[in-house]
Amino acid sequence: MEYFPPALEALIEQFARLPGVGKKSAQRLALFVLSLPEGEAEKFAEAIVNARQVISCCPVCQNFSEGEGLCPICGDPKRDASTICVVADPKDVIAMEQGREYNGVYHVLHGVISPMNHVGPDDLEIKSLLSRVEEGGVNEVIMATDPDTEGEATAMYLARLLRPLGVTVTRLAYGIPIGSHLEYADQATLMRALEGRQVL
Amino acid sequence: MEYFPPALEALIEQFARLPGVGKKSAQRLALFVLSLPEGEAEKFAEAIVNARQVISCCPVCQNFSEGEGLCPICGDPKRDASTICVVADPKDVIAMEQGREYNGVYHVLHGVISPMNHVGPDDLEIKSLLSRVEEGGVNEVIMATDPDTEGEATAMYLARLLRPLGVTVTRLAYGIPIGSHLEYADQATLMRALEGRQVL
Repeated sequence: MEYFPPALEALIEQFARLPGVGKKSAQRLALFVLSLPEGEAEKFAEAIVNARQVISCCPVCQNFSEGEGLCPICGDPKRDASTICVVADPKDVIAMEQGREYNGVYHVLHGVISPMNHVGPDDLEIKSLLSRVEEGGVNEVIMATDPDTEGEATAMYLARLLRPLGVTVTRLAYGIPIGSHLEYADQATLMRALEGRQVL
Repeated sequence: MEYFPPALEALIEQFARLPGVGKKSAQRLALFVLSLPEGEAEKFAEAIVNARQVISCCPVCQNFSEGEGLCPICGDPKRDASTICVVADPKDVIAMEQGREYNGVYHVLHGVISPMNHVGPDDLEIKSLLSRVEEGGVNEVIMATDPDTEGEATAMYLARLLRPLGVTVTRLAYGIPIGSHLEYADQATLMRALEGRQVL
């Protein structure tokens, strides 16, 4: 049985499609949108349409960009274009940038190889990465995919393709996260931290 | 520092305004909308605009309705119009309806009296409730506001206004929720359950 008018049910359904939003949350969000002051809901709708229209991918690193040109990072002459950090998603670029230490450029794969989800190498931005490296001027490619099975597999796969091109392929270090406690670290992390121990 | 293109930041900001959605969730939602197939994001935007345009309040019960006429509940001749259940929000109507036992009609206040949030009696649909009762044909008004301070205060306030009009004013029972355990019930609930004990 439908308890809300159809237009409201339609809006609830749209919200319920969002990741992590269930039926109850979708109701709450839809009712909130209805309660917005005049014009505000329209701004929300416009932001959706506008983002879809103007956001494209940077032709070099494939990160989200506005308009036709390079993204702000690729277009910045102060960034070291000889080091490419390969990430799965645009949000991983943000995670790296928030560290404020990395000065190289990025390459966004837009996913990881995942046979379970029918994502193969051809569905990712791998060809564009290879041709970037083939063009020359790249010394190091840092694999910064997630440390899970799919992220690992993708990193290994890319490393095998990249090494013959004469670049150094590296991987982010595994280990105990800063600020955590040894007793809470899982065994796999602890063993990786032991393997990767460094001379003080 | 902004890591995303402005149009995407604008969309993230819109999502971050939603209740219970933080900056991180807003990013996730905005990126999801960008990843939707062609036309789907536009449907989302349309649903927002459309809901705002066609949803109005039922002239009798003030619940959300589509178009000018009565809502489906007020327009249903099988519902008992002599019993009015007063709730704070449209979602409370759904909660009641899901019980499938109540056959009366509703009155939606669109809030509760809350001096802390500058919501006074005039900001609520109280006048419309009083004139509904004054018109006659109503035997009982059931207060179904939340059992918190503001819900209680609103129920008490309304009861004082309604009693002189010659209707029975009742309140939903307080007590132990079905399926719960006595040991987990808070003291206030337990004392109310004791006060409201019934002969078996």
